[in-house]
Amino acid sequence: MKTRFEPQDADFGNRIQKSFSNQRVMTLLGAELKTVEPGIVEIELASRDDLTQQDGFMHAGIVTTVLDSACGYAAYSLMPAGTSVLSVEFKVNLLAPARGNLITARAEVKRSGRTLTICTADAFADGNICATMLATMICLDRTKPNKN
Amino acid sequence: MKTRFEPQDADFGNRIQKSFSNQRVMTLLGAELKTVEPGIVEIELASRDDLTQQDGFMHAGIVTTVLDSACGYAAYSLMPAGTSVLSVEFKVNLLAPARGNLITARAEVKRSGRTLTICTADAFADGNICATMLATMICLDRTKPNKN
Amino acid sequence: MKTRFEPQDADFGNRIQKSFSNQRVMTLLGAELKTVEPGIVEIELASRDDLTQQDGFMHAGIVTTVLDSACGYAAYSLMPAGTSVLSVEFKVNLLAPARGNLITARAEVKRSGRTLTICTADAFADGNICATMLATMICLDRTKPNKN
Amino acid sequence: MKTRFEPQDADFGNRIQKSFSNQRVMTLLGAELKTVEPGIVEIELASRDDLTQQDGFMHAGIVTTVLDSACGYAAYSLMPAGTSVLSVEFKVNLLAPARGNLITARAEVKRSGRTLTICTADAFADGNICATMLATMICLDRTKPNKN
Repeated sequence: MKTRFEPQDADFGNRIQKSFSNQRVMTLLGAELKTVEPGIVEIELASRDDLTQQDGFMHAGIVTTVLDSACGYAAYSLMPAGTSVLSVEFKVNLLAPARGNLITARAEVKRSGRTLTICTADAFADGNICATMLATMICLDRTKPNKN
Repeated sequence: MKTRFEPQDADFGNRIQKSFSNQRVMTLLGAELKTVEPGIVEIELASRDDLTQQDGFMHAGIVTTVLDSACGYAAYSLMPAGTSVLSVEFKVNLLAPARGNLITARAEVKRSGRTLTICTADAFADGNICATMLATMICLDRTKPNKN
Repeated sequence: MKTRFEPQDADFGNRIQKSFSNQRVMTLLGAELKTVEPGIVEIELASRDDLTQQDGFMHAGIVTTVLDSACGYAAYSLMPAGTSVLSVEFKVNLLAPARGNLITARAEVKRSGRTLTICTADAFADGNICATMLATMICLDRTKPNKN
Repeated sequence: MKTRFEPQDADFGNRIQKSFSNQRVMTLLGAELKTVEPGIVEIELASRDDLTQQDGFMHAGIVTTVLDSACGYAAYSLMPAGTSVLSVEFKVNLLAPARGNLITARAEVKRSGRTLTICTADAFADGNICATMLATMICLDRTKPNKN
């Protein structure tokens, strides 16, 4: 997969893998990092009965959890070394019940800035779109105090 | 606690308790329904190491999960009998790291309509605001086919 | 331009032209309806000194005005005859200053439902993306009382 | 009116008045700055036939324009001297048609940070709530190149 983005840090893939493996909630949910390209990240999550809302579909908040991480890492892939990423805000539209065996969250950077990165992401349930996110991420310089 | 809202269904409390107990993800997370009043719902969630993101704070998506359920049930408390509630969309701003022992999500109906209900919700970590949500919920008539 | 959407009302184009010409604010701003295809609408707006914010760029609210109308009409293009469209909510990210001679707002339906339609739209300033919108529109049956 | 916010720049009121008077679109719309307190700003806008959408109500984008400026200046009231403010993003829910003689947009800071400020705002049509906004504003240091 080719993207129009140039990473500033060639080691972005390892950086994201390491951060993802530190997101302990991903282990609880069973989410897996699938695609990591400059500006693009995909996370997969298998359906499980203990992730459901009242109608038996995956809870919108759990779909949001993987969408948010996918957006965060898509943004992080373009950030320089020595930084960390945090979510500023996101909006999610639920387009269809998240019903199916596999949820895939695919995020893409829409605009990459020095401080803020804007991402869009779609979630698919067995290939059918079920949710979409528009998110703002912030780049924090880990060598300085938090300026958020 | 008194609210300016009049429920259409006196049994709204039981309806919400039952629906909440069917949200199996709430059991996985350890979330508990605390306040259920007309137009107002509070959910509590104890911090746990397996709910964290890369910095050790509760993942924004998990905070969103309880904010979303709180908004959904705040809206549902004002809906008539024989209906169900679904999230149309929500926006969340992360205001501070969700660090602390107890996360409390408190939702309130902002405007209640026949089809759509708009809610706001704040999340607090040990009493300090950490996130805020603005959400749109839809009322579905369970006696008719889905018209979403 | 071909789209994957099938209009329910062959007369959608006239319906949109007529509604647009009734949006008197479009005349005040000088906005023009350019593209009207099933599920896709473009509106153009020439820059003018009296549309600016404090730095001399087009005010984000004015960019939002044309993005909102573009989303509304993209949604309306797929609605049946005898209906009207209203905005439920939208979120806008400002990606760059709206600086240039011509602002183009291009909206596309992301998911079309019986009651709700979700749209995305981008605004371009002389061809460079300057804003993006994610919006929810509602279809109202003009033959019945408002059920929003 | 008292607020819980302490301005960093005692001259914030003049700064906001000057910036507002440079927003030329406010003159076009006839909007007036009414309240300027630390963390709180109100803008009023008289209804006019040339600000309407297809049903004769004020266009959602015009309501958004005054909500956005109100949020921006509420945020700006707490920023230090030598800075400027820009909108990062906002979400608006339309709660009722903006019908009436006078639209009032009232914004309040929800969280003030060094770089980002989160605001909420409500719009009222003759005193009845018609729209609500949740917005993110960014503080730019005018003495340095744009780091957005």
